[in-house]
Amino acid sequence: MAGLEGVDNGGHENLTMVESREWVMVAYAAKGIPTSDHLKLRTTKLSLDADSIPKDHVAVELLWVSVDPYLRGRMSGQDEGLYFSQFALDEVITTCGIGRVIRSKSSKFSKGDLVSTSFFPFSEYFIIEATSLQVVDQTAGIEISTYLSALGVPGFAAWVAIEVIGNPKSGSNVFISAAAGGVGMFAGQLAKFKGCRVVGSTGTDEKVKLLKEEFGYDEAFNYNKEADFDAALSKYFPNGIDLYLDNVGGKMLEAVLNHVNARARIAVSGMISQYNQVWTEREGVRNLLNIVGKEVRIEGYLMGSHMDRFDDFTKAMVTYTKEGKLRSKHKIYYGIESFIESLGSIFSSSNIGKVVIQVKP
Amino acid sequence: MAGLEGVDNGGHENLTMVESREWVMVAYAAKGIPTSDHLKLRTTKLSLDADSIPKDHVAVELLWVSVDPYLRGRMSGQDEGLYFSQFALDEVITTCGIGRVIRSKSSKFSKGDLVSTSFFPFSEYFIIEATSLQVVDQTAGIEISTYLSALGVPGFAAWVAIEVIGNPKSGSNVFISAAAGGVGMFAGQLAKFKGCRVVGSTGTDEKVKLLKEEFGYDEAFNYNKEADFDAALSKYFPNGIDLYLDNVGGKMLEAVLNHVNARARIAVSGMISQYNQVWTEREGVRNLLNIVGKEVRIEGYLMGSHMDRFDDFTKAMVTYTKEGKLRSKHKIYYGIESFIESLGSIFSSSNIGKVVIQVKP
Repeated sequence: MAGLEGVDNGGHENLTMVESREWVMVAYAAKGIPTSDHLKLRTTKLSLDADSIPKDHVAVELLWVSVDPYLRGRMSGQDEGLYFSQFALDEVITTCGIGRVIRSKSSKFSKGDLVSTSFFPFSEYFIIEATSLQVVDQTAGIEISTYLSALGVPGFAAWVAIEVIGNPKSGSNVFISAAAGGVGMFAGQLAKFKGCRVVGSTGTDEKVKLLKEEFGYDEAFNYNKEADFDAALSKYFPNGIDLYLDNVGGKMLEAVLNHVNARARIAVSGMISQYNQVWTEREGVRNLLNIVGKEVRIEGYLMGSHMDRFDDFTKAMVTYTKEGKLRSKHKIYYGIESFIESLGSIFSSSNIGKVVIQVKP
Repeated sequence: MAGLEGVDNGGHENLTMVESREWVMVAYAAKGIPTSDHLKLRTTKLSLDADSIPKDHVAVELLWVSVDPYLRGRMSGQDEGLYFSQFALDEVITTCGIGRVIRSKSSKFSKGDLVSTSFFPFSEYFIIEATSLQVVDQTAGIEISTYLSALGVPGFAAWVAIEVIGNPKSGSNVFISAAAGGVGMFAGQLAKFKGCRVVGSTGTDEKVKLLKEEFGYDEAFNYNKEADFDAALSKYFPNGIDLYLDNVGGKMLEAVLNHVNARARIAVSGMISQYNQVWTEREGVRNLLNIVGKEVRIEGYLMGSHMDRFDDFTKAMVTYTKEGKLRSKHKIYYGIESFIESLGSIFSSSNIGKVVIQVKP
């Protein structure tokens, strides 16, 4: 990446033209985990000179990105009413990330500012409208990766599930699937803060231990070792389930519906067991009739509809983080080229906590 | 039925001992429609003399009963968290009905009063606590059968779905399955009163006509003639579905989930397609993932939890009935012995409107 003149951004003095690698969707993946057949790392040249940046726009260098399960849903090519729309073919995909302003034509941002948004182009460099960005507060003494974790997509998904959709009373029986994943690890802790009894399911014994010893879950089990989810839930929920945070869907949701208490709530954050199949080939949930007699409410939610609560969320999570009360695990992949591997890792039993990519140090 | 002395109740002067026929559950029906293998009409003798009636109790002669789909759920012998509990074996079943007080030891009721409750013993004569009964107002000029229809179980189920759970705005797109059944016929009319566009599915062309011509539905279709529910919903809901009142479950619910708008509500009153199968043999719903991206809420409800609104409901429905605005159809079976036939009829495509039994003229 050779600089010519004019952009003073510390590490990248005088750049006017950069080579920028970016992830492009070249073919949809109806089934399975997307591979290099579907996603290509394309190199383009981008002019960063003053004339190339429109008014109220900034040039950004990408530092971190958040790798979340919902991205898979945007790659299927099937408009099932899923999260957001499908990524357009031959265009750069987007994800939540953190970047640094390297040139600004906006009064809102100065070079060097760290900025974030939910829909960054997944490019090493890009020019973006300033109004779509938030400043990342570097004075709070919080690690940058935390802004993509406890203070980012998974933290907010967990907070909305527990505080807004579920809102369990103290003493409620709360079940969380994919409990050691990005959303689950925070949701369990938030439910514990509210005085609930919390049980999680996860995919390895190592993660069962982690849930109980690090994240404060009352109980946890390895679903790969339970031939009968129904029996497992009988064992771990002798008094039934009041709130289920569903991150997986499918057979676990079906089992939960056999253990719900009257007026139980099921907050559906995602259904990770369902993303890699065409919907007509999925195993259906056969006992939905149970929601009538128990007056159960099953509710899907998206974070975008709860942005009016984002400040409340940030305040709460910053407090918990500073008090050392909220524990977190994340796996960092390095370099933009690690995206396919990191995306695949989310769907593997061995994944623990939040997955992020550090695009640049 | 021979009288000896003392009970002056008009049609049954001087009864002290009566023969009373009553429906008893003798075996559960895991699958299919219950038959005489499961339900027996037993004859017992009941003493109605003053000493046999405890304080604050009344003797009642059964006049009408309401035959509703939820009764089927209480006969499966499977505790799936269904509506209420299973009927006890070798005991008299219960249902919503209207009777006449023939002897009273309660200051609340006099002989000749018409009374109702949701849990009458299904017996020609019985003694019951007065506190469990409501008076049926005979001065309102409303047909008695209407108290089991517009003002009874199906009317209240419809009203709660539309006014409490769904609460659609004017202009919303509302879909109702089993639309010509007891709940559906009222729900569609209530949604029309709120300014919605209402489409119903039903099982015969005759009922399609009825829905459009009598009940004011904008559109209706015969699901028995639609090979592809998805295609039918594409046709009838070009702008998607905002509220679905689910009375059937199964494949129709699955199809609806492919047509829901953002923040659609699905009020689940019952799932009549699901009652006659063991749950593990039912066809599952495979596309529940759609509820996340569309932020759909699926909610089961029981009338018992909404009794605080019963007076509002009654007031509204009495007004609509007196204004001639609310149309109703019911099928009357005659005699207590017609119960098995009338119960089976609910699950048949040919059933129209509310099913009741006139036990005595």
